[in-house]
Amino acid sequence: MTADPATPLLDTIDNPDDLRKLAPEQLRQVADELRLETISAVGQTGGHLGSGLGVVELTVAIHYVFNTPADRLIWDVGHQAYPHKIITGRRDRIRTLRQGGGLSGFTKRSESEYDPFGAAHSSTSISAALGFAVANKLAGTPGRGIAVIGDGAMSAGMAYEAMNNAKQAGNRLVVILNDNDMSIAPPVGGLSAYLAKLVSSRQFLGIRDLARRISRKLPEPLHRAAKKTDEFARGMAMGGTFFEELGFYYVGPIDGHNLDQLIPVLENVRDAAEGPCLIHVVTTKGKGYAPAEESADKYHGVQKFNVVTGEQAKGAAGPPSYTNVFAQALIAEATRDSTVCAITAAMPSGTGLDKFGQTFPDRAFDVGIAEQHAVTFAAGLAAQGMRPFCAIYSTFLQRAYDQVVHDVAIQNLPVRFAIDRAGLVGADGATHAGSFDVTYLASLPNMVVMAAADEAELVHMTHTAACHDSGPIAFRYPRGNGTGVPLPENPERLAIGKGRVVRQGSKIALLSLGTRLAEALKAADQLEAKGLSTTVADLRFVKPLDDELIRKLIATHEVVVTIEEGAIGGLGAHVLTMASDEGLTDAGLKIRTMRLPDVFQDHDSPDKQYDTAGLNAPQIVDTVLKALRHNSAGVSEARA
Amino acid sequence: MTADPATPLLDTIDNPDDLRKLAPEQLRQVADELRLETISAVGQTGGHLGSGLGVVELTVAIHYVFNTPADRLIWDVGHQAYPHKIITGRRDRIRTLRQGGGLSGFTKRSESEYDPFGAAHSSTSISAALGFAVANKLAGTPGRGIAVIGDGAMSAGMAYEAMNNAKQAGNRLVVILNDNDMSIAPPVGGLSAYLAKLVSSRQFLGIRDLARRISRKLPEPLHRAAKKTDEFARGMAMGGTFFEELGFYYVGPIDGHNLDQLIPVLENVRDAAEGPCLIHVVTTKGKGYAPAEESADKYHGVQKFNVVTGEQAKGAAGPPSYTNVFAQALIAEATRDSTVCAITAAMPSGTGLDKFGQTFPDRAFDVGIAEQHAVTFAAGLAAQGMRPFCAIYSTFLQRAYDQVVHDVAIQNLPVRFAIDRAGLVGADGATHAGSFDVTYLASLPNMVVMAAADEAELVHMTHTAACHDSGPIAFRYPRGNGTGVPLPENPERLAIGKGRVVRQGSKIALLSLGTRLAEALKAADQLEAKGLSTTVADLRFVKPLDDELIRKLIATHEVVVTIEEGAIGGLGAHVLTMASDEGLTDAGLKIRTMRLPDVFQDHDSPDKQYDTAGLNAPQIVDTVLKALRHNSAGVSEARA
Repeated sequence: MTADPATPLLDTIDNPDDLRKLAPEQLRQVADELRLETISAVGQTGGHLGSGLGVVELTVAIHYVFNTPADRLIWDVGHQAYPHKIITGRRDRIRTLRQGGGLSGFTKRSESEYDPFGAAHSSTSISAALGFAVANKLAGTPGRGIAVIGDGAMSAGMAYEAMNNAKQAGNRLVVILNDNDMSIAPPVGGLSAYLAKLVSSRQFLGIRDLARRISRKLPEPLHRAAKKTDEFARGMAMGGTFFEELGFYYVGPIDGHNLDQLIPVLENVRDAAEGPCLIHVVTTKGKGYAPAEESADKYHGVQKFNVVTGEQAKGAAGPPSYTNVFAQALIAEATRDSTVCAITAAMPSGTGLDKFGQTFPDRAFDVGIAEQHAVTFAAGLAAQGMRPFCAIYSTFLQRAYDQVVHDVAIQNLPVRFAIDRAGLVGADGATHAGSFDVTYLASLPNMVVMAAADEAELVHMTHTAACHDSGPIAFRYPRGNGTGVPLPENPERLAIGKGRVVRQGSKIALLSLGTRLAEALKAADQLEAKGLSTTVADLRFVKPLDDELIRKLIATHEVVVTIEEGAIGGLGAHVLTMASDEGLTDAGLKIRTMRLPDVFQDHDSPDKQYDTAGLNAPQIVDTVLKALRHNSAGVSEARA
Repeated sequence: MTADPATPLLDTIDNPDDLRKLAPEQLRQVADELRLETISAVGQTGGHLGSGLGVVELTVAIHYVFNTPADRLIWDVGHQAYPHKIITGRRDRIRTLRQGGGLSGFTKRSESEYDPFGAAHSSTSISAALGFAVANKLAGTPGRGIAVIGDGAMSAGMAYEAMNNAKQAGNRLVVILNDNDMSIAPPVGGLSAYLAKLVSSRQFLGIRDLARRISRKLPEPLHRAAKKTDEFARGMAMGGTFFEELGFYYVGPIDGHNLDQLIPVLENVRDAAEGPCLIHVVTTKGKGYAPAEESADKYHGVQKFNVVTGEQAKGAAGPPSYTNVFAQALIAEATRDSTVCAITAAMPSGTGLDKFGQTFPDRAFDVGIAEQHAVTFAAGLAAQGMRPFCAIYSTFLQRAYDQVVHDVAIQNLPVRFAIDRAGLVGADGATHAGSFDVTYLASLPNMVVMAAADEAELVHMTHTAACHDSGPIAFRYPRGNGTGVPLPENPERLAIGKGRVVRQGSKIALLSLGTRLAEALKAADQLEAKGLSTTVADLRFVKPLDDELIRKLIATHEVVVTIEEGAIGGLGAHVLTMASDEGLTDAGLKIRTMRLPDVFQDHDSPDKQYDTAGLNAPQIVDTVLKALRHNSAGVSEARA
């Protein structure tokens, strides 16, 4: 690692008030130093880099021109907000980014008054900005809503819904479209082609054009006259009818790295806008750091790296990631079966579908950030005889919940849901945790829900899903690497609703769903060492549940514990419901359920997160021992 | 009621094949008879009328021109598909619409091959049509995807996500925008204003224009030449850059009641389109039936009515609807507190917010069919100090699940969710049932979840929500009328997480959540008559749960039964989880959970639906008696 960079001017800035004391001609230096500091910090912590580097000048310009925090600035997704954090009072902690107890990798309300609205999922910023703007308008207090949103995020329906309501905010809404022509992967769809056309068909506004076009630069009487005409913002607009038709004044395109353009345009919008404005700013992801600019993904998300060379730290060599195992398994299925196809919502590399797409370009669909469409599109494909796999992270599938219910489950269409990032996700924190999928899917009639205990199981489940034509089926698997078990040469088709006993004992039964199986097995060893013979079952399915196996284990064991990486309402709830329905608790049943706790857990290392959640081997052992000791007369030690 | 109308030509048409045998000049008569038949049928059954009357000509024209069912026709929402049902083999059952065992009020795959994709929630049709189109394209089989979607449905982000991906389908995708300038209420937003501008600024295409503009009407060599140029569809297009920018050929506006316009335009699109086409058709909701055309809501949804006079049957006078009670309660809150505001997603009358908006126009927000935006907009309002109530049906809140999790719950923002239509909904059937909200909300940290047992409780809960500033809170209530209890003069602020004992007994404890309370009380009477002293508790909250009360009831009663109008994962699961965590099952606990069964229930009268679901008093009694009789040795009579 290299020494921290020299940043003499940045050192004088603790927050935007300090920034605003500077002369405009000093801002270039601030931006340069801010860029260096960002690179240096992320070199030490890893995290999102390319997006932040692309908005360094924008960050400086917005805080310089607008009255943050009274003007509410919302960074869509929030992973580009590291430079923003540095100049809003958090520079002293910037090298704790994404570390346990450190700064979040996204914006977060609890961190700073300059983060009025937390983010992490894309395309929420315009809705939130509109909320701030309208609330201030109603209360008669000053303050705008300012959303900075990427072109990729614009493909989400939510952004469109918000734009369609923009007029409610009057001139208190400012949307800055940060067009870098890629979200994580290159963007898709008609809107993206349109933006490219807007940019390529015109030159950026030059200084001279600006002087001529921006009405406030006119002598005052003329300025007033200009303001009264519809020509005002249109004088600056060079296209953008799409946005104009939704009710915005369109301004752009603007070179997002040229402060001499950004500052006057933002000032003009601040002082003279008469309705919601959309400012189309063109930036380069990874700007100003050669290794990032030259990389295919523009250093979207990086490990710690050497600032001079750009070389990223390698993770320890180990088992393949679940994502890769899924991708290879799906390619194998698609090789056997020409109806297998795959859909991703703007996460081709995150879900492994980039590899699938290289092999089967006609059968890979990247629909953009559009989970709702992804699921119903898959339903349509399934209704016409295809075997579609929707590969969506657990947390993002929440965005298509109604489509899962209404278009897939009610119609009992065989859409396959490959749910990556299930369970806790480490440095990405609460917003990306896949905590709820088992609960929200297993409550649906017709739905089959599986969880893979290791990467070999994931191969079997991918195959099982491919074979399952009678209705929808979902399988979940976590972020990160597998356990190192050998991968099967030929995948097995699992019997629907059947679990497996992994280890046979006689006194304690641990019923595991998903990758906590490894911890359950460790716990079994420790219990065995204490003379407690322990059975470990991998249930594989939460819906349908293996009633027969569970009935048998309940009947033959003294203590039963369920273990899962999900919120209340999942495996534990389903086992308890089945047991009580059948009267298995009537004569006494020592059963405990272990699950994610009722909190949104902050970012940390995954293992620490599971420790905090109480889902590691020692806590399993502890739960068993407490249950054994529990005085049936009714005093609960478990809660002591 | 009047006699069935004379429909000599329609009588010869069983399905679209019969229709296609007719000469074009006969279609006008078919449409007229189809309209009469639709009015007559809905007069007898009640249901959606205005939307169907608006698309009579469109229905005839689409089936005449396109090759249904191989061309996959998808009616967005599906409530306008009654005329479609009549000419696709279901005329003999059209007078069973929305009756138990009868035809669905929406499209439904199991009813007909002419319903390739069921609907009921809005804005899914383009995604599904794209799925059909792409699947056929991949398989090399003929067949288009044709979506008919209203202008209101276009405000949903999902429709935009799909349009943004339209190019994937090539010329196999046809979108027919049915623009009647209202969904249920008049539409809102920028897009709507844009459509109005398109329509008002131009005349409809005249016959002469059509002949000139439509390339296939040209002599063949010219036709071929025209096809090769970009001029083809643009020759017909008269605006529509919004859609063109998303990748469509825009055609329109067309008079949707003029078959002489519709038929040639559709034929041209069928034969000569080179990419996805959007045909902008202007229709009148309620067309051709004076009482409907003159009514404010255009007879969107009606009771049985007299065909001659249009007079609708009145429901029996009775207690006020939950919706109205909520609306009045919210107006009272807003009168006391200027920060109370309300958001609806295109359902002002369905949620009662039309009344709120009349009193507080500045604080009522109809955002269009845009649930995702509605929730995050509310989160922004809450973050800026407002007290927003999001009034959304249970089934539609599914569409904003990620926003509830990510923007509201994680940030612990005090958004109030007023969840109407919770539980089974009668004639609207499976797609509109509010079955999952308790499960998907009560699994979220920070969330408070209540259910009103009657309309007085609803008043208290509205007030409790208004007062609850420490985080999000949701309260659910059913479709239909209250129980007739007196409404409180002054609402109470309920203690968060505290239930109430409604009736004290000693042997049986019934734990109820929501409006099954009335059945629980009936069941208690019947049990008492059998000598079984019964306690009935209204838990009010499922999260936080009243642990103390439940613990006490478990300790002092022989049988405990939970009762709720929701799927697995709700009250029963939460009570069981708490009980097992505390070791309350260790020494034996006769507990049963009653909930909605694991099926999507078809439409029927609400009471019959609850009977089928097993949630009426006799079934509660039965569950208790079976539990009492249950042989603890392990033989389960409950499952016998």
